[in-house]
Amino acid sequence: MGKSKGDMLQTFEVKTSAKTDLIDITRFVQEAVRKAKVTDGICIIFVPHTTAGITINENADPAVSRDIVMMFNKIVPNQGPYQHLEGNSPAHIKASMTGFSQTVFVASGKLVLGTWQGIFFCEFDGPRSRKVHVRAMKVEE
Amino acid sequence: MGKSKGDMLQTFEVKTSAKTDLIDITRFVQEAVRKAKVTDGICIIFVPHTTAGITINENADPAVSRDIVMMFNKIVPNQGPYQHLEGNSPAHIKASMTGFSQTVFVASGKLVLGTWQGIFFCEFDGPRSRKVHVRAMKVEE
Amino acid sequence: MGKSKGDMLQTFEVKTSAKTDLIDITRFVQEAVRKAKVTDGICIIFVPHTTAGITINENADPAVSRDIVMMFNKIVPNQGPYQHLEGNSPAHIKASMTGFSQTVFVASGKLVLGTWQGIFFCEFDGPRSRKVHVRAMKVEE
Repeated sequence: MGKSKGDMLQTFEVKTSAKTDLIDITRFVQEAVRKAKVTDGICIIFVPHTTAGITINENADPAVSRDIVMMFNKIVPNQGPYQHLEGNSPAHIKASMTGFSQTVFVASGKLVLGTWQGIFFCEFDGPRSRKVHVRAMKVEE
Repeated sequence: MGKSKGDMLQTFEVKTSAKTDLIDITRFVQEAVRKAKVTDGICIIFVPHTTAGITINENADPAVSRDIVMMFNKIVPNQGPYQHLEGNSPAHIKASMTGFSQTVFVASGKLVLGTWQGIFFCEFDGPRSRKVHVRAMKVEE
Repeated sequence: MGKSKGDMLQTFEVKTSAKTDLIDITRFVQEAVRKAKVTDGICIIFVPHTTAGITINENADPAVSRDIVMMFNKIVPNQGPYQHLEGNSPAHIKASMTGFSQTVFVASGKLVLGTWQGIFFCEFDGPRSRKVHVRAMKVEE
């Protein structure tokens, strides 16, 4: 995990191993919060890609993320009247459905996530080496 | 509405009464902004669940939120080759489609919403008692 | 581009020319960041409508945004058992799928976007004259 562009804008890499996959990155985000020394505030996670997104969901049963990937692949099928010649339009569309950033509260130095929540990088056009930007910010009261 | 985890991270409950439903929570969010005494800044609303989400949409005609629920149920049908044994994968998938947080500007102590906009809690696996975290933050200029 | 409701909450107009369309607004958002004189922080873009949204995606090949619009129109068809009498329920539903705001980091006075990323206004019920609110915020470290 390295720092880039501004003191506390951190960037880490995610290596994905399948065409479509959800990868739990919660611990990397939590580590970025720790490095930023933010105890009370918010944390924003941003994916600088156009065929990958970011979401939050259950990280207890891995079948949940598999079902999400399966259904996104059904909703946006690989075959279709796509014009984009690179052939990865379904990945672009799925990314716009999950979104490219998530905002999570930070309290007592920890991400304020629900019992079952984890933060997932959504690979829709892998396998690739990807980047995730994270910034934790203090909130003044 | 009580305070928790940090001075101005507020949490309120939403009791849902159907399997899938959109519930207008705008007034509770506005009340949280008032309690935080933020006149100019941003307000972030976060749902700490994995089978419920949050969205913004029209709150004038209740048929709009019924149509949203109806269509989400069509796009992600209850029956499917889901692996998650708990049987609520469709709810997890719909939540990743709406998202788990919304960010709204605050000016003169009020949420800066469009004429027809309301903030909706999206229940996808109810009925249940749910939580919503809200934090209003001053912006320094 | 004018200022409104708070010193640095800026608003600009987007005139759309089709029923459904994605319009690249990156340069207007970057201009708002410049006017706000924020060199290091975050920028939030918010659409105060209920039948339009905002997303990030590829702005190199225009076929990508055409494919996104085409597929959203397939996923949420114009004909359906919609109850909302105004007849634009599909637009409300698509807007809840893309979302109403985006958050982008700012470093050295520039939006921190990936190589292929642009910020797009999503018109789902045009043609109309629309508004976009933008606020760039310094982050104190």
